[in-house]
Amino acid sequence: MSQLARTNEGVSTVERVLVIGAGLIGTSVALALRDKGSEVWLSDRDQATARLAADLGAGTVVPDLRDAKGIADVAVLAMPPASVAAVLGYAQECAVAEAYTDVASVKVLPVQQARERGCDLGTYVPGHPLAGREKNGPGAGRADLFLGRTWALCPLAENLPAAVDAVTGLILACGANPVRVDPQTHDQWVALVSHAPHVASVAMAAQLARPSVPPQALGLAGQGLRDVTRIAEGDPGLWTQILAANAGPVAEVLRAVSAELAEAARVLSDAVAAPPGPSAATAVTELLERGNAGVARLPGKHGGQQRELTVVQVVIKDQPGELARLFNAAGDAGVNIEDIRIEHSPGLPVGVAELSVRPAEAARLLDAMEAGGWPVRR
Amino acid sequence: MSQLARTNEGVSTVERVLVIGAGLIGTSVALALRDKGSEVWLSDRDQATARLAADLGAGTVVPDLRDAKGIADVAVLAMPPASVAAVLGYAQECAVAEAYTDVASVKVLPVQQARERGCDLGTYVPGHPLAGREKNGPGAGRADLFLGRTWALCPLAENLPAAVDAVTGLILACGANPVRVDPQTHDQWVALVSHAPHVASVAMAAQLARPSVPPQALGLAGQGLRDVTRIAEGDPGLWTQILAANAGPVAEVLRAVSAELAEAARVLSDAVAAPPGPSAATAVTELLERGNAGVARLPGKHGGQQRELTVVQVVIKDQPGELARLFNAAGDAGVNIEDIRIEHSPGLPVGVAELSVRPAEAARLLDAMEAGGWPVRR
Repeated sequence: MSQLARTNEGVSTVERVLVIGAGLIGTSVALALRDKGSEVWLSDRDQATARLAADLGAGTVVPDLRDAKGIADVAVLAMPPASVAAVLGYAQECAVAEAYTDVASVKVLPVQQARERGCDLGTYVPGHPLAGREKNGPGAGRADLFLGRTWALCPLAENLPAAVDAVTGLILACGANPVRVDPQTHDQWVALVSHAPHVASVAMAAQLARPSVPPQALGLAGQGLRDVTRIAEGDPGLWTQILAANAGPVAEVLRAVSAELAEAARVLSDAVAAPPGPSAATAVTELLERGNAGVARLPGKHGGQQRELTVVQVVIKDQPGELARLFNAAGDAGVNIEDIRIEHSPGLPVGVAELSVRPAEAARLLDAMEAGGWPVRR
Repeated sequence: MSQLARTNEGVSTVERVLVIGAGLIGTSVALALRDKGSEVWLSDRDQATARLAADLGAGTVVPDLRDAKGIADVAVLAMPPASVAAVLGYAQECAVAEAYTDVASVKVLPVQQARERGCDLGTYVPGHPLAGREKNGPGAGRADLFLGRTWALCPLAENLPAAVDAVTGLILACGANPVRVDPQTHDQWVALVSHAPHVASVAMAAQLARPSVPPQALGLAGQGLRDVTRIAEGDPGLWTQILAANAGPVAEVLRAVSAELAEAARVLSDAVAAPPGPSAATAVTELLERGNAGVARLPGKHGGQQRELTVVQVVIKDQPGELARLFNAAGDAGVNIEDIRIEHSPGLPVGVAELSVRPAEAARLLDAMEAGGWPVRR
């Protein structure tokens, strides 16, 4: 692996990369690595897609993998899970790279299929970046898509150490944090934290689509419903493939969620028949408390440390320059705004900006807002 | 009703208000009406809570309702649903106001209990502001809590027109949009758009609390899971009361969501046993598409008109003044930022600001960002 230069940390940097599959993730990998100075080659079964990615500055198109022998240190397979093994086999047949990885959101299926196909498992190091957008295609690609995100790396027993090093180097070059986990555990974890929540969101959102629900009912919807159902906007075609490829672990979580909801419905129905006794209320409260406990386990921002932030509300006008003026005032006061949520007021020319800051900085921010003429409440 | 002055629109303004229950909602109503110049009286079964609200500028404490005969044009009952009827009966006995309303998030139960208790239904006009926060208590109160929000108004057949006018005036004075709906329909609608989504969020979040789930699994969590489970942080005690008070309609929606999830689990499990046939994939895709359709029905910002916005990504440093500089540049360019989402990069000193703007303004914003030295992708 002479092409793989060693960095100070003993991790290989990646000089030459071939991205196969120029959708959102593939194009984003290409853009991220180009930013780091890598030589990037692009391939897609749809030549127009590859050319679009190239036009966006993601690299140079390779029209035919059969002409690309030894072109790359690492080849990145960016496609739905069920397609990975076949493309891996072909790419290895063409000997395009010294190491291979994929970015599919499930790992058992492609590994199993690669094994069945007799792919070279010495050089195939499966991976999965935990990053995405609601949009698809090369045009949605972003060089910063993986910045600071977790990127699951699932080395196989058969892997050559140099191949693992090369793929690890690629992940680091994309700005992501590699986390090692075996394929089976990976699939169980993403079923819990990504795939099942997607279906739960969809199942709730689907109730809003019932013909018996009049538009006026949705007029009562608040931010909570919008948050719960946001990811239900995802592409049904892509999600069908993801769910089918991780069917077992996803089904297990969905059964558990379904059972919780059925039990809650049963307890509530019983409470209608008879006045709610302590046991009915207790069962509902117990579920609500477990929900609290689950959310509390989610790592916070800034490297997983939960930080207590204070929220300051400011009423703002919905006009150019208003947020500028507000942030300028905060910046002048030396206050670092950690997060912001803007709530627009339907039909009104004002909104509320909720600014999250460190508790020690809240008073300074309030002073600055007040001095700037915004009404604040202490 | 000589105290109720008529405005140009023929809606009464409210000169004298008594807020009974000085929690988040009651205090916010008081603050909103004080801002509009109303005379506001405060009462709470806990005197310390009432005094705290008064200290926050929400009004003047009434220690004993028996001494408050005729003190208000409208009395607002801000307490959990199961307490409304008893307090209404007592307040009417003390004749504290000419009209009464409540703000409980269910309506059939308090109306039914008020009827059973023999309350005066001529002057009791039930209501429910669709606004709230994750925090509770008078300290969380905000004068702008209801700005532009929907406020369900559920006039009863027995209501005196003057009472309906008075309560409508109070809602408008709080900056909210009154929407008339009968109590039963109201409860079905909020079960769908608020109460059942809360339980769905909780049921998903509860899976994260299982002892079998290691902390590392949650390290793979992305924004999607955080959005789906955000409202599961709500107070279990309060939510137990809300769910119990709207048990029938909530149970009906939960049964439907549970059935969707059980069916999805069944289809996916079948797909594990046998390779997925077209019908399995079709069933999952069909559910995902109904989820899309449900989200699409949610009214957008700015008065329910869905507006297409363009998202511009900018990499920002996590330091004081950075957002100020960015918004200043946008404001100088005359660009109105409609929405913003900040994604921090765990462990890294940078984040990505996603700025939503009208499509026609995107190019101008990109120019401004580039001129300001921020890397952007066109």
